[in-house]
Amino acid sequence: MTIVNNRGKRFRVPDATIKRLPLYLDKLILLQQAGVQEVSSRQLATSLDIKASQLRHDFHYFGGFSKPGRPYLVDKLVPALREIIGIDEPVPIVIAGAGHLGNALANYRNFERQGFPLLGVFDVDADLVGREIRGVTIRPMSELADFIRERGIRLGVLTVPLDVAQIVADDMIAAGVTGLWNFTPTEIKAPDHVIVRNERLAVGLMCLSFKTKRIGMPEEMR
Amino acid sequence: MTIVNNRGKRFRVPDATIKRLPLYLDKLILLQQAGVQEVSSRQLATSLDIKASQLRHDFHYFGGFSKPGRPYLVDKLVPALREIIGIDEPVPIVIAGAGHLGNALANYRNFERQGFPLLGVFDVDADLVGREIRGVTIRPMSELADFIRERGIRLGVLTVPLDVAQIVADDMIAAGVTGLWNFTPTEIKAPDHVIVRNERLAVGLMCLSFKTKRIGMPEEMR
Repeated sequence: MTIVNNRGKRFRVPDATIKRLPLYLDKLILLQQAGVQEVSSRQLATSLDIKASQLRHDFHYFGGFSKPGRPYLVDKLVPALREIIGIDEPVPIVIAGAGHLGNALANYRNFERQGFPLLGVFDVDADLVGREIRGVTIRPMSELADFIRERGIRLGVLTVPLDVAQIVADDMIAAGVTGLWNFTPTEIKAPDHVIVRNERLAVGLMCLSFKTKRIGMPEEMR
Repeated sequence: MTIVNNRGKRFRVPDATIKRLPLYLDKLILLQQAGVQEVSSRQLATSLDIKASQLRHDFHYFGGFSKPGRPYLVDKLVPALREIIGIDEPVPIVIAGAGHLGNALANYRNFERQGFPLLGVFDVDADLVGREIRGVTIRPMSELADFIRERGIRLGVLTVPLDVAQIVADDMIAAGVTGLWNFTPTEIKAPDHVIVRNERLAVGLMCLSFKTKRIGMPEEMR
């Protein structure tokens, strides 16, 4: 990604740095909610399993955010990172599929706190339609496309059954969604202007299992 | 991580390679379930947004898994990767907290398919205790530690409310859990021999939002 600094100079920021920005922001929002006002690069980095020098290097691309030797001010760093990541304004989301996982995600308060208010939840099941999840009414799936179009929603969460995943995704994309968070265990075909993020929960368990098996081994065998 | 090959030679595998192994395995299990028998490095890599050369390089550390120019045999590659990752035997898990997220994860069939059978779900809520989730009865939280100890369970999923997260984590660790999958938005303090994986769902949305904002920009600005 290319950044333009205050003096109009353009420079490239490595992808690896970009990928860490949401992790920093997520952590800082937690600190902010806990009432923490200042945090050192070491504290912030350690809690994320990153080296402090790496974090300072990452922040350096954006002006550093603090004077050398001084802690970061959480209330200043949060909006600065929000702006860089592009979520300084709330980014509304919809959830397609109100089954177990859709329901759990709709109940996950943290999305809102992080800047992603939930505007709509959709399902084909007549028993679910009309129910409320934290003030959001479950609507019929047939209204999904119009809802997205009318409200200009760009991010959609896909938690429908496997066999209808592509159809629902196509509907969402045709209606204007450019970012799809896919929780179904299938690949979604999408045009080039759409980003699909496949959330593979089992991969988390695999990584965890792999690491625990190695923790007892001597350092050089890990 | 250090690997010993057939000839007894030891060599180091980069962490980045290790981190990609679960992604490969996850994808291959999906292909296997879909009845796919052969896959080229290009097909496998492309579906994971990785370069084919990178994938072949990763596999090379473990003998390559196929002859040059030949596709991988899915049914051979899956058990080979399972063994390397250390999940050739099923790794049982328990879930502490049967709220929305715990319930959704307990209903997630893919964990079992990937080698992580769910043995127990626990909650303090008397209304939930005794209910079944896919054949697994929700038990009182007070039985969690004994259950873990008696069955030698090493992986635990933490989906309890924030304010009891550390207490429940301590219980699980004292009972023998060495890998904790933490879905609560708090940091869990754990001894050195325990791996805590913090699953920060909102980070997924941040990354997705960030990428969609850049997709319309010229290549050099992304």
